[in-house]
Amino acid sequence: MGGEDCLSGVRVLDLTQFEAGPSCTEALAWLGAEVVKVENPSGGDPGRAINPPPGADAHYFLQYNANKKSITLDLKTSGGLSLLRKLAQQADVFVENFAPGAIERLGLGPATIRALNPAIVYAQVKGFGAGSPFENNLAFDMIAQACGGPMSITGEADGPPLKPGPTIGDTGTGMLLAVSVVAALYRRTRTGAGEHIEVAMQDAMFQYMRGAFATQTRTGQPTGRAGAGSVLARNPPMGIYPCQGGGPNDYVYVYTSRANPEHWRRLLSVIGREELREDPRYATSAARLEREAEVNEMVAAWTRRHDKYEAMRVLGDAGIPAGAVLDTAELLEDPSFAERGIMQTIDHPTIGAYRMPAWPVRFSGRPPPVRPAPLLGEHTEAVLAEWLGVATGAGA
Amino acid sequence: MGGEDCLSGVRVLDLTQFEAGPSCTEALAWLGAEVVKVENPSGGDPGRAINPPPGADAHYFLQYNANKKSITLDLKTSGGLSLLRKLAQQADVFVENFAPGAIERLGLGPATIRALNPAIVYAQVKGFGAGSPFENNLAFDMIAQACGGPMSITGEADGPPLKPGPTIGDTGTGMLLAVSVVAALYRRTRTGAGEHIEVAMQDAMFQYMRGAFATQTRTGQPTGRAGAGSVLARNPPMGIYPCQGGGPNDYVYVYTSRANPEHWRRLLSVIGREELREDPRYATSAARLEREAEVNEMVAAWTRRHDKYEAMRVLGDAGIPAGAVLDTAELLEDPSFAERGIMQTIDHPTIGAYRMPAWPVRFSGRPPPVRPAPLLGEHTEAVLAEWLGVATGAGA
Repeated sequence: MGGEDCLSGVRVLDLTQFEAGPSCTEALAWLGAEVVKVENPSGGDPGRAINPPPGADAHYFLQYNANKKSITLDLKTSGGLSLLRKLAQQADVFVENFAPGAIERLGLGPATIRALNPAIVYAQVKGFGAGSPFENNLAFDMIAQACGGPMSITGEADGPPLKPGPTIGDTGTGMLLAVSVVAALYRRTRTGAGEHIEVAMQDAMFQYMRGAFATQTRTGQPTGRAGAGSVLARNPPMGIYPCQGGGPNDYVYVYTSRANPEHWRRLLSVIGREELREDPRYATSAARLEREAEVNEMVAAWTRRHDKYEAMRVLGDAGIPAGAVLDTAELLEDPSFAERGIMQTIDHPTIGAYRMPAWPVRFSGRPPPVRPAPLLGEHTEAVLAEWLGVATGAGA
Repeated sequence: MGGEDCLSGVRVLDLTQFEAGPSCTEALAWLGAEVVKVENPSGGDPGRAINPPPGADAHYFLQYNANKKSITLDLKTSGGLSLLRKLAQQADVFVENFAPGAIERLGLGPATIRALNPAIVYAQVKGFGAGSPFENNLAFDMIAQACGGPMSITGEADGPPLKPGPTIGDTGTGMLLAVSVVAALYRRTRTGAGEHIEVAMQDAMFQYMRGAFATQTRTGQPTGRAGAGSVLARNPPMGIYPCQGGGPNDYVYVYTSRANPEHWRRLLSVIGREELREDPRYATSAARLEREAEVNEMVAAWTRRHDKYEAMRVLGDAGIPAGAVLDTAELLEDPSFAERGIMQTIDHPTIGAYRMPAWPVRFSGRPPPVRPAPLLGEHTEAVLAEWLGVATGAGA
């Protein structure tokens, strides 16, 4: 048994593009839903065109649309709209992340679709929430990360705000929507009722930085930036230390928890400074905070003599939380991830073999299998026949 | 109708602590599950003690344990273990995030619990995946962000790796587990079968940085750091520009999409440089990349004359994606979030009034209501009576 049959039988009508919406519907697809992506015939999801290889869909698109089907419909024509409404009557879930007001202008807003199909779970992603002063503004990942707080807590303590590299604004939002959609489907097995679900990218950011809000309440001040440390508390040594090699990611993260004084004592043994175990100048985290630069240099003097993998291994074996800073090449090429199904290689009709991260949660030991993202309109005929054919009762 | 009844009737036995596990079970609680947190009688979840106010639980704990119940059981005694096993027979979901091997040493591993209750969804969070060379290593948020890739793509292009402020390693992992648990519950309504679900914090990071993996494949090189830009492509102007005020977060993010050349033209109008609309030196994103510093200074010359809210309003009204960099105080105190239920104020028995971010997804217009995190052992008697009383059939 694996996760790929969890949502068997669930039909998702997917009017999303780029990342925030597609990451949600892709999670549903990986877990077994039949996700039908509805695209315009003239190019489809603009995500297909973000730095594509010649004559093919972008790798970016492949990442966020695996295991889905694609149909093309021209929603600027009454025929296209009519087909979309018929498909919505056959769907269990409807997801969209167009610009504010666009889906309503098409006549496909929540009131209309829910009137046609009261049992449908109708889900929307916007940049800003309904009722926000900015509800009509456009949003992208970086706008959400600015207005939702992440940039204010990322960067060096004395430097300007910085954007986290991960796309929390997009996929971070999509994951909260996915939890909510599946929960509404679960309730529907009991009540039969549909739902209208909305999430705003700005609002979603708070979920990923609640430690910073806790610190704000405790101190009464806006939570600042903590560099490689934690917004909860400074507790040296903790940080990113340089390793042998000198490359841009030849670093190791070393953490010593205040909750476990053994981390520090074990670290002293590893770095050959056992004489300091009982030294009151370093014995507590409060004392080490007084000598932060000195403590950090003690650790760095050791890490500089080791490569990052060795440093991680030695520290980890000694029971000290430590992690090498790994880059995309090191992660993509590490055979351990492929063996465990965390990275999977698809055979895409125009891209060929492409290794990509899968849904990283294992069900009975394995993540769900990845199937290639669809070509534009690849499933138009099949879906219109299956969903709207005489056998399914709706009539085409 | 709101989201708080989605998981009504679902019983979750919650053996998690700190953030990765608790953020998952809290999502289940917000969506209506009865989540019973099992804690040791001598202090409970160590999250209760992260910078707590005198005589009370930490704000940190309140953030990640809202809407849950707490019972205390001493799992070092056979009596405590026996009660835990009986509770597991009554539960629909079991979640744990102890250090590697700990739950098995307690005799509460997946094989044991699933033998007692084959329909249970048994979910585990670890730092590294089973089969990973580091599967026995300790992990915290920052270790996952080092080993899973986020640090390698965060920071300035010519600077060292940096930690994103948001706790993607913890809550980012918890959200993927929550999607998976609810999906397994959904399948169970059809099949009656339980499941064993595992997620590793390192593996979970890939989900939030798949654009960086797409870029890696496209370029054949490890994806680097892009500062305030995007790992997908440099496309000036895009970045964090200084505003009036000079405070640590007096900045505005301005984005012009390559996919929509109108963003740049609209920006020229706003900053009073309409004479450049057709100028070939700036007309395309490729041309602007040749003059990146000059283009950025044009934008900054305008943003410096405005405060961040005004800059966001003017740019947003003109149809240019823009977002003020907001800090925790500005977000917590903005009445718009309280009005919309995105921030909610609880009345905690020892902390008093505490405003905190809620589950940010709205169901029929409102997020689920927040109830205070439980005091240690607050529900021990009630839960043992309800779950193990004669009426429920298991015997205490």
